[in-house]
Amino acid sequence: MHPFLHRQFGFMGSQATHQQADFVLFGVPMDFTVSFQSGTRFGPQAIRLVSDALEEYSYYQQGSLKDVKYYDAGDLDLPLGNTLLSLDRIEKVADNIFISNKLPVAMGGEHLISFPLVKAAKKHFEDLVVFHFDAHGDLREDYGGEIYNHATVMRHVGKLVGFENLYQFGIRSGSAEELAFAKSNVNFFFDEILEPLNRLANGWQGGPIYLSIDIDVVDPAFAPGTGTPEPGGCTSKEILQAMLLMVKLPVVALDIVEVSPQRDQSQRTAVLAAKLIREALIGLHLNKNTL
Amino acid sequence: MHPFLHRQFGFMGSQATHQQADFVLFGVPMDFTVSFQSGTRFGPQAIRLVSDALEEYSYYQQGSLKDVKYYDAGDLDLPLGNTLLSLDRIEKVADNIFISNKLPVAMGGEHLISFPLVKAAKKHFEDLVVFHFDAHGDLREDYGGEIYNHATVMRHVGKLVGFENLYQFGIRSGSAEELAFAKSNVNFFFDEILEPLNRLANGWQGGPIYLSIDIDVVDPAFAPGTGTPEPGGCTSKEILQAMLLMVKLPVVALDIVEVSPQRDQSQRTAVLAAKLIREALIGLHLNKNTL
Amino acid sequence: MHPFLHRQFGFMGSQATHQQADFVLFGVPMDFTVSFQSGTRFGPQAIRLVSDALEEYSYYQQGSLKDVKYYDAGDLDLPLGNTLLSLDRIEKVADNIFISNKLPVAMGGEHLISFPLVKAAKKHFEDLVVFHFDAHGDLREDYGGEIYNHATVMRHVGKLVGFENLYQFGIRSGSAEELAFAKSNVNFFFDEILEPLNRLANGWQGGPIYLSIDIDVVDPAFAPGTGTPEPGGCTSKEILQAMLLMVKLPVVALDIVEVSPQRDQSQRTAVLAAKLIREALIGLHLNKNTL
Amino acid sequence: MHPFLHRQFGFMGSQATHQQADFVLFGVPMDFTVSFQSGTRFGPQAIRLVSDALEEYSYYQQGSLKDVKYYDAGDLDLPLGNTLLSLDRIEKVADNIFISNKLPVAMGGEHLISFPLVKAAKKHFEDLVVFHFDAHGDLREDYGGEIYNHATVMRHVGKLVGFENLYQFGIRSGSAEELAFAKSNVNFFFDEILEPLNRLANGWQGGPIYLSIDIDVVDPAFAPGTGTPEPGGCTSKEILQAMLLMVKLPVVALDIVEVSPQRDQSQRTAVLAAKLIREALIGLHLNKNTL
Amino acid sequence: MHPFLHRQFGFMGSQATHQQADFVLFGVPMDFTVSFQSGTRFGPQAIRLVSDALEEYSYYQQGSLKDVKYYDAGDLDLPLGNTLLSLDRIEKVADNIFISNKLPVAMGGEHLISFPLVKAAKKHFEDLVVFHFDAHGDLREDYGGEIYNHATVMRHVGKLVGFENLYQFGIRSGSAEELAFAKSNVNFFFDEILEPLNRLANGWQGGPIYLSIDIDVVDPAFAPGTGTPEPGGCTSKEILQAMLLMVKLPVVALDIVEVSPQRDQSQRTAVLAAKLIREALIGLHLNKNTL
Amino acid sequence: MHPFLHRQFGFMGSQATHQQADFVLFGVPMDFTVSFQSGTRFGPQAIRLVSDALEEYSYYQQGSLKDVKYYDAGDLDLPLGNTLLSLDRIEKVADNIFISNKLPVAMGGEHLISFPLVKAAKKHFEDLVVFHFDAHGDLREDYGGEIYNHATVMRHVGKLVGFENLYQFGIRSGSAEELAFAKSNVNFFFDEILEPLNRLANGWQGGPIYLSIDIDVVDPAFAPGTGTPEPGGCTSKEILQAMLLMVKLPVVALDIVEVSPQRDQSQRTAVLAAKLIREALIGLHLNKNTL
Repeated sequence: MHPFLHRQFGFMGSQATHQQADFVLFGVPMDFTVSFQSGTRFGPQAIRLVSDALEEYSYYQQGSLKDVKYYDAGDLDLPLGNTLLSLDRIEKVADNIFISNKLPVAMGGEHLISFPLVKAAKKHFEDLVVFHFDAHGDLREDYGGEIYNHATVMRHVGKLVGFENLYQFGIRSGSAEELAFAKSNVNFFFDEILEPLNRLANGWQGGPIYLSIDIDVVDPAFAPGTGTPEPGGCTSKEILQAMLLMVKLPVVALDIVEVSPQRDQSQRTAVLAAKLIREALIGLHLNKNTL
Repeated sequence: MHPFLHRQFGFMGSQATHQQADFVLFGVPMDFTVSFQSGTRFGPQAIRLVSDALEEYSYYQQGSLKDVKYYDAGDLDLPLGNTLLSLDRIEKVADNIFISNKLPVAMGGEHLISFPLVKAAKKHFEDLVVFHFDAHGDLREDYGGEIYNHATVMRHVGKLVGFENLYQFGIRSGSAEELAFAKSNVNFFFDEILEPLNRLANGWQGGPIYLSIDIDVVDPAFAPGTGTPEPGGCTSKEILQAMLLMVKLPVVALDIVEVSPQRDQSQRTAVLAAKLIREALIGLHLNKNTL
Repeated sequence: MHPFLHRQFGFMGSQATHQQADFVLFGVPMDFTVSFQSGTRFGPQAIRLVSDALEEYSYYQQGSLKDVKYYDAGDLDLPLGNTLLSLDRIEKVADNIFISNKLPVAMGGEHLISFPLVKAAKKHFEDLVVFHFDAHGDLREDYGGEIYNHATVMRHVGKLVGFENLYQFGIRSGSAEELAFAKSNVNFFFDEILEPLNRLANGWQGGPIYLSIDIDVVDPAFAPGTGTPEPGGCTSKEILQAMLLMVKLPVVALDIVEVSPQRDQSQRTAVLAAKLIREALIGLHLNKNTL
Repeated sequence: MHPFLHRQFGFMGSQATHQQADFVLFGVPMDFTVSFQSGTRFGPQAIRLVSDALEEYSYYQQGSLKDVKYYDAGDLDLPLGNTLLSLDRIEKVADNIFISNKLPVAMGGEHLISFPLVKAAKKHFEDLVVFHFDAHGDLREDYGGEIYNHATVMRHVGKLVGFENLYQFGIRSGSAEELAFAKSNVNFFFDEILEPLNRLANGWQGGPIYLSIDIDVVDPAFAPGTGTPEPGGCTSKEILQAMLLMVKLPVVALDIVEVSPQRDQSQRTAVLAAKLIREALIGLHLNKNTL
Repeated sequence: MHPFLHRQFGFMGSQATHQQADFVLFGVPMDFTVSFQSGTRFGPQAIRLVSDALEEYSYYQQGSLKDVKYYDAGDLDLPLGNTLLSLDRIEKVADNIFISNKLPVAMGGEHLISFPLVKAAKKHFEDLVVFHFDAHGDLREDYGGEIYNHATVMRHVGKLVGFENLYQFGIRSGSAEELAFAKSNVNFFFDEILEPLNRLANGWQGGPIYLSIDIDVVDPAFAPGTGTPEPGGCTSKEILQAMLLMVKLPVVALDIVEVSPQRDQSQRTAVLAAKLIREALIGLHLNKNTL
Repeated sequence: MHPFLHRQFGFMGSQATHQQADFVLFGVPMDFTVSFQSGTRFGPQAIRLVSDALEEYSYYQQGSLKDVKYYDAGDLDLPLGNTLLSLDRIEKVADNIFISNKLPVAMGGEHLISFPLVKAAKKHFEDLVVFHFDAHGDLREDYGGEIYNHATVMRHVGKLVGFENLYQFGIRSGSAEELAFAKSNVNFFFDEILEPLNRLANGWQGGPIYLSIDIDVVDPAFAPGTGTPEPGGCTSKEILQAMLLMVKLPVVALDIVEVSPQRDQSQRTAVLAAKLIREALIGLHLNKNTL
């Protein structure tokens, strides 16, 4: 209508159309199975809003979002409180993105959303591997009798891709059973991130990677806006460093979950998530070009 | 162990045992079907905590909680995200309270919990009438396809007790369909509370009453700690006045729902809920004695 | 892309295109020179976000936004700290809206934005009258030596439309000079809203009306999210009532300004602004049809 | 040093020296005997800070602080946790102010500070009367065994001036004993302010008045920043109206207590207190001149 | 009454009775001698509430609270503002716990509470040593003339157990006198924690240890909920590491003080305190068994 | 008037007169055009208020503010929204301080204030060098068309002192153009602070230094109260360490900017700024004496 007006409220001014895009961002505002504090349904919109405060250019990678074709597809409409139907819809949307040969970037929402996302990815990448950054292992069989819950999500994921294809970093909390299970079945790195990741990233020969970051892997000092804060986590520098390593690996889909903006007056949690997404988009774009 | 230590964290120092009690309070920390902001699962505990700031004595009724036998039974354990199982448990607990001839006082939690509570009440009081104070009619058939939702609760309730036995006060928001339905089927008082209540209370000949108060009937200035704030509501004085009228009627069960403490730094929403419960306990006790 | 995804972040799901629209909403995020966080520049986006919590239907007027053709044109891009250039852009955008025969609805931002908006309106409506609801008269000649300031806006407006065409409601604060000036030159209603408005609305024979609402006309209990809270204001019920009177008058443009969302954890200020806009859209639409 | 620099942090730019002043403001940052939430020690400084947001001129009384000679003497240094020594110091400071023929205006701090202030006033005004606005009667003999406590302050005051000289307005909470005592001994107005005050103010023949306002007499919607919020209070309009009546009476000293700024993000509680002080200063000044 | 209801609001679902318990937790909600910001009286209850968000199992020590017999005895009733009587009661309660051969775990409350706790411990352990983690030395002789104050607590403690038996870690703030005194008399580690603790813990031959942790030893980024935040502290990882070292030493009593929940929207301070208590309980239990 | 009253609201009880002072502190509350609430304009006053919570003595440098002659000159009066006039006033005030042979310490306010401050310094120190700590390079030519903006400040500074005399530490965000420009023209240390500073400080032979600290160089975990939080910054320990290095260099003026207190409930950002100023005053004083 008029040159001075903009209706663009997507992630950091995403300009590409869905057609042109290499990456498709979308929000999954689901938070009904969480055990402590809810509120992550407002995560995607908060990440978009604060993304305005960031530069499009990354000093870390010396690349710019201006050169990346990404499309912010908005938020998924979910049936409130209906877990199974919600999981189904999430899977369908992700499946569509893979079918059109694009890379999905999901913004949570609670962690359970990773299950249908991985499910869709697995259909398209037979030898899929999952890299999981989290304070919690999320390996329970059930939680209070319910099997679909944010505390059980990696058990579902492991069953799907094989637990030997699940890599867990930064885990520092869980039940005795989860720990025993993780030690025997999973590539499990207790309270460690950069050291094992560096080792793995160096000459990775494994399959394509689904990357799932629960923001609570970061210490609540750096990411207070989350539902189950667990003191003793990594710094914002460390998780940024981890992302700079990840983008050199064959990541085919990713999610950042459990951002709960109303618990963080300063919005630094959402800003950190937005910055991680910026680095992911730029890095995956740059490395695709160099491969 | 030692006279200076107290382990009592119940509502305003409830002292009676369950056995002795005339009233049984309990929290129902359910909030997974809400459409906007969640967080009401922390409502019951917040109401208990702030109840310490109130006196046991009511200047309004010149009576004291010291003379009332009430027992705070704690919070219900609910399966997260499993709506049907949750409703079932709530009903069973309320049923048990009625069986032991006590009056249940439920602290929400989201509004959907009123449905199983009314269901239990209806078993014990055939000619049950429901008085409902709310900003929203909650009369939808479904919400986003889901039939068990905080926006549909009074439709379920009305089907159970008969819509002619449903009285709605203070309603100021809803869909066109809800308004049309309410006008034709329900005793519906748009944006009015004290005037119709006064009229009804005067010489009430109807049946026993289930009282349900959604705290958002009050203006968000007085009760900001709620999920769907709707400007244009009543004052705290008016809702207190309404309670002083209600306690003179044959109330057989009551709930106060949708208190979401994390949205209210001052905790005046929880204090208001606690004060309403105090007035209810004292008033129902006093009037029982005079009847 | 997929039926379950929505990219719609406009006011209450505005669906019409600019072409079809009778009303054009737009945000004017002016409050100056810092590039990210400050106060009222986040007002328009907050109003859009919380509008999700409201119904499209109004119980007050028994009409629905579904029947109103409105378009949310997004936010104006403004040069930070450059006041004169900003005022110029605002005027141009409003002028364009009038040219295409639509009614502009501006969401502030600071109050100074009303001046260019009135300027544009005056070009199209020679006998324009301004109705101004505010705690402050905003009639200063200058403020700290600066003439373009939110405390001088109505002096500029009055010079433009004639002070005899300026009606000020609810004013309760200002300098001695402002008060003396207002009493001699303006239709000035000290600390009063509904009584004089009712009188004026009844059989209004005056010209087309520009309506400007500074949200601080409402008491900070009901609208804490504003820059200069002034205790002693009206209630949310009263300002809603005022809007229901206004929509029966020939309003040709309107603004709601000084919503500062970061000062209000509960967001009830933004919800109130959104509700006022809903009532304005529905009411002006309904009355246009009946006229 | 330089004309553009100011070191003035007193109430609304108080300019007079102590010598010239008719009114002496001072803060009493004591909060160690409160029973629920502390934090009122930051009250005086908050009132000064937000006073910048107010005009010096009052539209209500058409007078300006510019014409009033008042001096902000800063905050009292108090020995932390030593109640008796603190009370002694407060009394001495107030006594000094009376000796120099000035009117003390104390900003609390907790309510217990009124006792030494009244004690000092009583020395200088034999027939002193106390007007007390509060949600709570504060008439206990002791609280948890302690006799010097914010809940006992008016018992001490009444013993000093005679309970027949104590007028209590707006009281809506307390123990059964306090209510019984108040009814028999005190001029006690349950939950009422303007009606009895109007009656009394009209042709007052009583003695000089000490005015004590506990900000929690106002509903927590209007004054959330206080330690023991009690829903069901008056509006900001009503307390302002009460002050406009009070300034026509022979007030010889006043305090405003229990402002707890950290409980109120919007700072409207402190703004209300500052506005009440502004009206008090202007009104007492204007009426002194007319008497 | 009913299997789905729980009345348990103690620390992480403490199940043991006082009789069976090896550890007795209790809250000491005292905060009336603090010099800056009060509010620690709500610390114990906040720690209990957030403890729900933690697992019972510790990945760090591979042990579970399920195997530890601990009892949460609730909060101490204290006479508000009466410092000496309060100290007396605290000592008596702790003495009782020692007499019944249990280990007291106190949750503050302000730091002054450590004095009566150490006093009780000293009666039962003649060669008692005190390990003190804090940003401040708390070694003043008096503060504003008062000798019983949170800034003097370790002076009292040192006089009692001998300053050569006082070990202070992480101290980074105080007066010149305190520093001079500490250097000459105390085992004083300026701004250091893990290095000296590691050294001491290795082959400790000293006496039984009283452990006192002022949460402000941690940087306010990780523990913002405290009264006197002092930037430049340790991380949450480091204090957890310190606790893992402490539990291998002969700790006979411990306190965690100065948690002020209202200063921390995210509650990560209380969660950190709860996690430290969990590690203390599990670690002391495990090591007792292995010794 | 009375020994127990203090009117002192300056930084940590500054006692010296302007005449006696070696250091002159002043606030520059610029952040523009709105007249009351916004962001960094409240920075100076917040730093003063929280400075009460700190000791006058530094354990790091074993020196005390008691021995330093500093004067807090209060806040600068600035014309709201008039950028050029404001810059002019700031320069004049700083110039005056240099003329009287004192060292200016400015508390921001937004970063643009550094430009006139450096301008004044350059007049008195021909070979001036600027040390700049920040998350952002602030080297843009313009921002949205405006050349005077907090994102362009170091471009102006560099033009004035020569880009070869500009040292930038900790920078981690900006545009591609800024990075390219910085690499070719400026002593630019990407994401590094202590390592290059240590190297430079060791045997510094350069000119007198203007020190500018944008608090957002620190990670938002440690300094959330700022306008453009950028995750991945340094810790509070590191910035304190940097200050301890800086005070050994010939610093002739300094500013700490972009403290926005309303974004930080805990006020740890303002406390960190106050602590940095304390270390600067003590260190520059001590080293002046030893030179």
